[in-house]
Amino acid sequence: MIFDVLTLFPEMFDIFSYSIIKRARDNNLIRLNIYNIRDFTTNKHRKVDDYPYGGGAGMVMQAEPIYNTVDYVKNIYGYKPYTILMSPKGEVFNQNISKELSNINHVMLICGHYEGIDERIMPLIDREISIGDFVLTGGEIACMAIIDSVSRLIPGVLSSNESFEDESFYSGLLEYPQYTRPEEFRGMKVPDVLLSGHHENIRKWRRYESLKITYKRRPDLLKKIDLSNEDMKMLEDIKNRKKEK
Amino acid sequence: MIFDVLTLFPEMFDIFSYSIIKRARDNNLIRLNIYNIRDFTTNKHRKVDDYPYGGGAGMVMQAEPIYNTVDYVKNIYGYKPYTILMSPKGEVFNQNISKELSNINHVMLICGHYEGIDERIMPLIDREISIGDFVLTGGEIACMAIIDSVSRLIPGVLSSNESFEDESFYSGLLEYPQYTRPEEFRGMKVPDVLLSGHHENIRKWRRYESLKITYKRRPDLLKKIDLSNEDMKMLEDIKNRKKEK
Repeated sequence: MIFDVLTLFPEMFDIFSYSIIKRARDNNLIRLNIYNIRDFTTNKHRKVDDYPYGGGAGMVMQAEPIYNTVDYVKNIYGYKPYTILMSPKGEVFNQNISKELSNINHVMLICGHYEGIDERIMPLIDREISIGDFVLTGGEIACMAIIDSVSRLIPGVLSSNESFEDESFYSGLLEYPQYTRPEEFRGMKVPDVLLSGHHENIRKWRRYESLKITYKRRPDLLKKIDLSNEDMKMLEDIKNRKKEK
Repeated sequence: MIFDVLTLFPEMFDIFSYSIIKRARDNNLIRLNIYNIRDFTTNKHRKVDDYPYGGGAGMVMQAEPIYNTVDYVKNIYGYKPYTILMSPKGEVFNQNISKELSNINHVMLICGHYEGIDERIMPLIDREISIGDFVLTGGEIACMAIIDSVSRLIPGVLSSNESFEDESFYSGLLEYPQYTRPEEFRGMKVPDVLLSGHHENIRKWRRYESLKITYKRRPDLLKKIDLSNEDMKMLEDIKNRKKEK
């Protein structure tokens, strides 16, 4: 998968020289090309922004350097990659969008000031994505979240022991509690069931705990998944126990 | 404001050596301390994770090195800072949480594998926060989003021309379109009203456009804010025009 990133802060993307993404790049599973929008200005001072028409605080990024960078990228490939603008006005990113993007072989992500970008870049944009209802300094960190999330869905990027099948938002439920060695730590013990070696009981315990925490914290997620008969019974029990308290 | 960050990838936080956050650190408005959890292991191989009790894919971060790091930080200050675990199970981060955190003088953020952390660290945690319904490799990028978002609310971090008063999620509405020079770019013109110099018309146009895009893309946001009589009339008009199409 290829990611082309347009940004004013290319150095920030050194973050992908670490961890799992670095390994995926080394193994040619991911290609990450970073373009500095400032390199594509045509004015003497390499200025990329200017005051907004109509007044108001904040500077607005100009359309021209962005168009120039996109033209440059188009020229490399002979086509314009699927283009995403990181924008507080966009769709809110989630695991489904992540899966969709992981099926597109090539995406271009444009990071801009969050204060604003000249609206006239919109003809370049296939999709606007936000990572949530909060304000960031720029699109860079949002872009990194997307690259990280999408990359780990590319076959081969995660090794089998980094497998994601049980994870929150993969199954649609929040994850059950995890424990690792030692059996007792600062007086706190691992639940007996996890030490029992009884696989079916462990599976049930984990499912119950997943349903319980999801019911407590994110009941909205329960509406989005198909619940089995066993799930329904467990939820019934969870609700009854809550009432008793 | 002080941010203490516990992570296995301290180099990733070099990202805050750029842009607005760098300036805020240089001006002592923000202090950012990064602790490598691996430095606080007591075993020979500096191992921080182990297999989950009860089986399953993925490695689980052990409680001990995290407790040791937290003890170290506590020892520096004489108290445990307000402690946030980056977790897919947490509350979904938003601008209100960002404001809350910006009023706390000192926060400690713990980044872990997203595959799991030993549940016995929970007594250390004051709050679990997620940045959204998607899976990441680790908590680091989520943590960066929080630091970035909170920092820009600290008085003095943003200069007056980076002011945020009109931004999406600050007013509760998505932002109106922005334009900057030139007046005509690749055949696309700046809307006349923005060139008119008529402040009241500009204000109305912008409010109308904000309401329009919010209505179209994120009608959920309209329910969360107080709408003025003018807003209600504009929304009426927006809905009618939509029907006519």
